[in-house]
Amino acid sequence: MDRKQFRDLAEPEAAREAIASLDLESDAETVPLREARGRILAERVDANLDVPGFDRASVDGYALKAADTFGADEADPAELRCIGEVHAGVEPTVDVGPGECAEISTGAVLPPGADAVVMVERTDSAADGETILVRTSLAPGDRVMFAGADIAAGERALGPGTTITPREIGLLSAIGVESVPVRGRPTVGIVSTGDELVRPGNPLDSAAGQIYDVNSYTTATAVEDAGGEARLYPHAGDDYDAMEATLREAAAECDLVLSSGSTSASAVDVIYRVVEETGELLLHGVAVKPGKPMLVGRLNGSAYVGLPGYPVSALTIFQAFVAPAIRRAAGVPEPETATVEGRMAHRERYSEGRLRYMPVGLVMDGDGETLVYPVDKGSGATTSLVEADGIVSVPPDVEYLDVGERVDVQLFSPDVRPPTVFGAGEDDPALSRLLDRVDRPRYLAIGSRQGRRRLRDGVTDVAVVTGESLPDGTELGSWSREWGLVVPAGNPDGIDGLAALVDGDVRFVNRTTDAGLRSTLDAALDDLAAERGVDRRELTDAIGGYGIAVRAHESPPRKVLAGDADAGLGLRATAETLGMGFVPCGTERVTVVADETRADKDGVKGLAAAIERNDAIFESLAGYRR
Amino acid sequence: MDRKQFRDLAEPEAAREAIASLDLESDAETVPLREARGRILAERVDANLDVPGFDRASVDGYALKAADTFGADEADPAELRCIGEVHAGVEPTVDVGPGECAEISTGAVLPPGADAVVMVERTDSAADGETILVRTSLAPGDRVMFAGADIAAGERALGPGTTITPREIGLLSAIGVESVPVRGRPTVGIVSTGDELVRPGNPLDSAAGQIYDVNSYTTATAVEDAGGEARLYPHAGDDYDAMEATLREAAAECDLVLSSGSTSASAVDVIYRVVEETGELLLHGVAVKPGKPMLVGRLNGSAYVGLPGYPVSALTIFQAFVAPAIRRAAGVPEPETATVEGRMAHRERYSEGRLRYMPVGLVMDGDGETLVYPVDKGSGATTSLVEADGIVSVPPDVEYLDVGERVDVQLFSPDVRPPTVFGAGEDDPALSRLLDRVDRPRYLAIGSRQGRRRLRDGVTDVAVVTGESLPDGTELGSWSREWGLVVPAGNPDGIDGLAALVDGDVRFVNRTTDAGLRSTLDAALDDLAAERGVDRRELTDAIGGYGIAVRAHESPPRKVLAGDADAGLGLRATAETLGMGFVPCGTERVTVVADETRADKDGVKGLAAAIERNDAIFESLAGYRR
Repeated sequence: MDRKQFRDLAEPEAAREAIASLDLESDAETVPLREARGRILAERVDANLDVPGFDRASVDGYALKAADTFGADEADPAELRCIGEVHAGVEPTVDVGPGECAEISTGAVLPPGADAVVMVERTDSAADGETILVRTSLAPGDRVMFAGADIAAGERALGPGTTITPREIGLLSAIGVESVPVRGRPTVGIVSTGDELVRPGNPLDSAAGQIYDVNSYTTATAVEDAGGEARLYPHAGDDYDAMEATLREAAAECDLVLSSGSTSASAVDVIYRVVEETGELLLHGVAVKPGKPMLVGRLNGSAYVGLPGYPVSALTIFQAFVAPAIRRAAGVPEPETATVEGRMAHRERYSEGRLRYMPVGLVMDGDGETLVYPVDKGSGATTSLVEADGIVSVPPDVEYLDVGERVDVQLFSPDVRPPTVFGAGEDDPALSRLLDRVDRPRYLAIGSRQGRRRLRDGVTDVAVVTGESLPDGTELGSWSREWGLVVPAGNPDGIDGLAALVDGDVRFVNRTTDAGLRSTLDAALDDLAAERGVDRRELTDAIGGYGIAVRAHESPPRKVLAGDADAGLGLRATAETLGMGFVPCGTERVTVVADETRADKDGVKGLAAAIERNDAIFESLAGYRR
Repeated sequence: MDRKQFRDLAEPEAAREAIASLDLESDAETVPLREARGRILAERVDANLDVPGFDRASVDGYALKAADTFGADEADPAELRCIGEVHAGVEPTVDVGPGECAEISTGAVLPPGADAVVMVERTDSAADGETILVRTSLAPGDRVMFAGADIAAGERALGPGTTITPREIGLLSAIGVESVPVRGRPTVGIVSTGDELVRPGNPLDSAAGQIYDVNSYTTATAVEDAGGEARLYPHAGDDYDAMEATLREAAAECDLVLSSGSTSASAVDVIYRVVEETGELLLHGVAVKPGKPMLVGRLNGSAYVGLPGYPVSALTIFQAFVAPAIRRAAGVPEPETATVEGRMAHRERYSEGRLRYMPVGLVMDGDGETLVYPVDKGSGATTSLVEADGIVSVPPDVEYLDVGERVDVQLFSPDVRPPTVFGAGEDDPALSRLLDRVDRPRYLAIGSRQGRRRLRDGVTDVAVVTGESLPDGTELGSWSREWGLVVPAGNPDGIDGLAALVDGDVRFVNRTTDAGLRSTLDAALDDLAAERGVDRRELTDAIGGYGIAVRAHESPPRKVLAGDADAGLGLRATAETLGMGFVPCGTERVTVVADETRADKDGVKGLAAAIERNDAIFESLAGYRR
């Protein structure tokens, strides 16, 4: 098969049809009732017995002949001779004759001769201890549940396609069903093909460019959410014979085989070859962003879909194209909560002329309305996975989505819900701990500068910023932290301050310009420059590594720890955590500011309360003060 | 402890507090990432490594020094010498010097000396096969994802309380987490205490009044839905020593022990004694309907709740009081879909002066609005389990809920949704099969008479009725069925028609007056009476067993099969199914009629289509015709 013939991208609908044409269905199976929760009934279940199986007393009281009580009332009770007792679960040994009754418990078998039961509350025992006074008239059948009154043998109990929840378990229990015919779960084999991928739990060789395999476990979990049974195949690495063997094995054992975009052309070639030799390639490439590299085909009688490589793209394409097919094959209904409506938090331009599945995050505004904002502009970042809550389908002819425009969001899982509080800003270890005290927060540690920008754009609820100049909004709390140079334990180079960076031969590591801590460093360098009567640029040019900027608060110290640098911009708290030396340079204030229209959100108030109440967090971190 | 002290019923809030005061929490545990789906993170997870762990090419192209491309464009490309290749997953062996470049794959490590990557699409190979023409200017860092740019070591990845869905699995995979600290699932022991109860799968002695144990499996399943781990203890039967031993064992092994209302006072006494000896009874009896007999206490350091005995009551009280406590202990958030709003389908009176949890069913009207109707008036029927979709809380001071009044329904499971079509009426084997062809129907086989009534009341979408006089509405389809007397195989008594019932010594079994088939029988008896010039009553008095009326279409034949009668009112189809003899008496028409305002509901149209398209069903049933 010639790869070139698939240069024209298929329409998304054609991809959906191609996947629908594959048979993913698994044989029905029989499971014990106790394990049937969440399964889908494969066929109708009729009752095979009456429930109850006998005429049953509905109350504690006396079994009697109704005719013996005709005309009885409070003032003129019927007098019956009690001839014995009937207990639940025991066959009656008495026969109730005219003028007689038998004590009976709720649930017990109505004894022969009796046709009604009187509640004990409507009776009295006479002094002789043997005569019962019945102070009401009864009709035949009163307080008796007849055999089969609940379910009769031969009745339809549950239909095929029923999802088995506790109530269905109850009904099946009642009719004594111990094994339940359920729809089979499609078996989905997951084959990972990238040379550079390593499964979590195995050691990683970063120098060789290895990364952990994200898509295999993510896809396996999403397969299970959709009602499939995921089977992970061992990672074949760069051994193409092994990869081919794995693909053939998975195809033989599974209803569907999934792989996700390998960055290696040779891996794609192996997949092509196996599909070609043992099956049929239905399409390669779909006019959807992301998803262009999607493959659909048959592999040795089983179905095959190749997903894109970036984690958010792989999950997006899985949820849009593959999950519905798995649910259909498993008989699982589309989840009720899979879609929410919201409005765009800002204008989003788009002009690629093909369908776009845009990953978005959700946040509630102050009025409880759901705002939707795009995340992951194709960066392939795995953090986008937890920032994105679902996808918005943008048709090919749409050029932009306006701010405030209503959109439908397909959630990644029915469990997904917007965070109670959404913040962005400085990366700070005290804040990390405070967020632990808040229910379902979302926080992007993208630096004070980006935090300010997101707050201004009306996307986030709160910004966490350093410095004295605060963005407009409601201040939720603040603290100070000591910053300086993190050096190896014992400070072997004897670095004593910023001047040493300028004047000595020190390999320094900086933070990126988005970090508030970087601004604080620059302000301190301004002071040093003023002191020396020079331009700040003169100082920074003299600092070896001033331009080497890393993103997170532990990143410079970890570079020092790894021996790649002599000093890193950082916090005393980090130096302590990592067991390193610290050269203090000053303190800076960290402030949490909320959008004033969202200050009343529960999550925002929860964050304010967490700051207020957790002195212990600030006390436990070196260099921190309220 | 004196049982009498609990005569005053506790307020529901007090019961909730008593349950909240019990400690149901289980220790946190560590599970493999692959098994973490749906679990709740017990503590914050920070990244312990940079992702990516190296500076990584984001595209296929050439790694180079950006400075070498300054000023280059389409017309005036930079010319660089290609000195080798770098593949994903392999440590670079080249060092890029000035004027040099190296071919690089997406995901590969940026080789030493290079600071940017150009996309292959912006380059050409010169004729010498060694020189690469770069037709664009690059800045340092272009097309490079720096180490830690996705997640940096030391960053907060996920907070405690996070539900683990595919996206969290992805993030945890990326940072190489192979075992995940998750909240423990509270262990919930389920002890069944009724003498008369038998677990499904075991033989049932109906003569001794045994019934299958519904609550144990139902409650166990509901415990699992709430995030607990259910443990079923062997049923102790009527051996009180064994029951006591089981209770003590469950208390020792579980965080919470549940039992459901035993009808036997001695069983309650055993529970009392064990609670008294090893713990504390916090309350007995709650001012809620149902739930009056609820028990809350401590048992040997573990928590104990006694649920009511009727299945719908047990599930209602479990969902209202116990499930929230289990979810809290498990850290599971309240399900998003647990509540729906609807309006009352008819007026419901209530005046017991205590909180009522009213089990209700849901149905959509023709405008897509959710109607709510009460089910299970305390009958204890297990079929109510599948008729009820949830509960409406009716406060003590409410005397009635008016028709059209808005109510909130707490669903029994988040999976619950209204049926696509809701019908009631005649019990008919063809209809059972037709319903199998419809997606999520609900049908109550309560007889033609009740079917007409429910349709008239505006509760159901369709009625299935016998006879020529049809209720108002849209006719969806009809068929005829042959009826008569079902007799033992070979008709040993030589019964030849209705006259034999009147004139012979035949033990007959009738259907209840709600059944359309009963009306058809009575009409035939009218004809016979007219023929003989007597009153129908004269005939029916002469039929032995005319007054013995059973509910479902197989019930009379099964009585005959069991030897309890000689002839039963029934269908030719039933006689065939059960391998019995049949004495034909006539045919009757069965018609499906829809409420005309609901004729456009998908489920109603689906049922009409099923009748239209399934000739095979009618052909397969003896005595049936379209």
